[in-house]
Amino acid sequence: MEKQLSTCHQNILPYIHNTPVISSNYFNKITGAKIFFKCENFQKTGSFKVRGALNALKHLTDSKRLNSVVTHSSGNFAQALALAAHKFGIQSYIVMPRNAPKVKKEGVLEYGGVIIECEPTLYDRERTARRICLEKGATLVHPSNDLNIILGQATSCKELLEVHPNLDYVLTPVGGGGLVAGTIIAVKYYGKSTCRVIGGEPFQVDDAYRSLRNGAIESNSSTNTIADGLKTNLGEVNFPIIRDGIEMIVRVTEDEIVKAMRLVWERMKIIIEPSSAVAVAVLTKKKKLFHEKKIGVILSGGNIDVDDLLYRLHQNSIPRQEAKNERGLNNERNR
Amino acid sequence: MEKQLSTCHQNILPYIHNTPVISSNYFNKITGAKIFFKCENFQKTGSFKVRGALNALKHLTDSKRLNSVVTHSSGNFAQALALAAHKFGIQSYIVMPRNAPKVKKEGVLEYGGVIIECEPTLYDRERTARRICLEKGATLVHPSNDLNIILGQATSCKELLEVHPNLDYVLTPVGGGGLVAGTIIAVKYYGKSTCRVIGGEPFQVDDAYRSLRNGAIESNSSTNTIADGLKTNLGEVNFPIIRDGIEMIVRVTEDEIVKAMRLVWERMKIIIEPSSAVAVAVLTKKKKLFHEKKIGVILSGGNIDVDDLLYRLHQNSIPRQEAKNERGLNNERNR
Repeated sequence: MEKQLSTCHQNILPYIHNTPVISSNYFNKITGAKIFFKCENFQKTGSFKVRGALNALKHLTDSKRLNSVVTHSSGNFAQALALAAHKFGIQSYIVMPRNAPKVKKEGVLEYGGVIIECEPTLYDRERTARRICLEKGATLVHPSNDLNIILGQATSCKELLEVHPNLDYVLTPVGGGGLVAGTIIAVKYYGKSTCRVIGGEPFQVDDAYRSLRNGAIESNSSTNTIADGLKTNLGEVNFPIIRDGIEMIVRVTEDEIVKAMRLVWERMKIIIEPSSAVAVAVLTKKKKLFHEKKIGVILSGGNIDVDDLLYRLHQNSIPRQEAKNERGLNNERNR
Repeated sequence: MEKQLSTCHQNILPYIHNTPVISSNYFNKITGAKIFFKCENFQKTGSFKVRGALNALKHLTDSKRLNSVVTHSSGNFAQALALAAHKFGIQSYIVMPRNAPKVKKEGVLEYGGVIIECEPTLYDRERTARRICLEKGATLVHPSNDLNIILGQATSCKELLEVHPNLDYVLTPVGGGGLVAGTIIAVKYYGKSTCRVIGGEPFQVDDAYRSLRNGAIESNSSTNTIADGLKTNLGEVNFPIIRDGIEMIVRVTEDEIVKAMRLVWERMKIIIEPSSAVAVAVLTKKKKLFHEKKIGVILSGGNIDVDDLLYRLHQNSIPRQEAKNERGLNNERNR
């Protein structure tokens, strides 16, 4: 699979950014580790998803004459597929729930995608996508449960390991499983033999954690998390890769997600979305494990709807007193 | 003065970041210009101010045995002087209004500065700083009206011109005048002969605009702006440099500032503070002037108090309908 990953990277490189890797004295100090943040928030379309989308379409165009593609997504894969299709000169149809954030719809339109609105249920999303397949002769592209998607997502960690080959751990958020599965593959071929992958997942949507524990793909009965990119389940393609390759999945609370996101905003001056902050929250939660280690963190994306997020942050704010105590401690430590 | 600026840069380089210069397809597209953003938000202490503080202290330590320094600041210069003093191994006393944002006070403490609280009036700030000078034998350092400070701030634009020597315009926000005066000096020695400096200033605190019009330093009767770094007046050291060297000062509304800041957050995925957004707002406001030109923009800082800012953004939000119309237009243009 190393050859496949290498070819994939060559194929998509002309269309993506080899995103910067940055470090932060602040995070190094509070964790006692040496941390390298791979900034997929600066990737085209604002997330890593465009990597997988490009690789999937590259393979589709190689294997058949392709008129159009369709997917259903309320999030980053929508823009990613629209851009990838645009690059290959094919039409994309994006099935989006009618209540999807305006900023995400705008992204799809900018890249020339056609939005098909549906009801905000998984049932109606899938039904609408199937209808478009029939009506338009469009090929369905799944956002995470597809080996070409997984290999595309692997290229982010591959790039990170090309500049920092000696990482001890790589952290990613876990949603549909494409990024974490790809990261496991990249670590296998480009990391040192002892390098391990750790996934972060919100307690509120801990389907992957439960899937690993129970040995079968689980779903979530509710999806009440600020990490809107992590609500989906694993699939039968990525689940075995994750099951066999991951070190552990660490679950984090909504408060821990918000706090991690704010620390990145305030200390690193970059915008990450809540789903990305899940991996950062693991960093501070498990800092004993990471002491004096070299850690890669995939900052998966930076697409936020400022208005909406500001409102939710305000609602989710850590109680003032708690924040104050913690800050006091940090000051002591840094002096 | 070219020699002085060059020496200044050499002196402070070991202590600062040569901050990245980034571009944005989105801003290039909406302005029709080629824009290079100099990211002082990624500078140590989160703003350009550390450049001037380091140069001022370098000269003070060269010229006299220095026990301690003092300044009064509610903002970025407080942290900057604390860090600079720490680097040179001297004690800093920072006079801050007791209602200054917690995040700014924390920054000062982290760098080993001692905070002296005062009443939130200019009178009490100056009085308290004078008292500390007497009590501690501390040397007063002014945040903007000092040639060494100005030369320090000039190094940001110098670095920008070293990688992009052919800029037609350089934009900066205008507060106390140190950054814009320094930028004028850097352009004089390192820019092409036709390169011009344009300042951005909020209508709410347009003292520099009025100072230029009236030929004498003006002050503001009220300071009701979200751009909290731009409330101070010019001084007698930087005013003549600005008067003789600036192309114009463009005033922007509070809505224009908020909108520019949100565009940078959403499109470039980096955090800038409202004062920095003033220069970005000029970019979109004067885009006819900038058509097909090469523009440098000094993103002066990224220090935000998330809680407080979120609240204010929510208050200042552009009416939904207006935002919608504008977004619609952009989509048309990009398709």
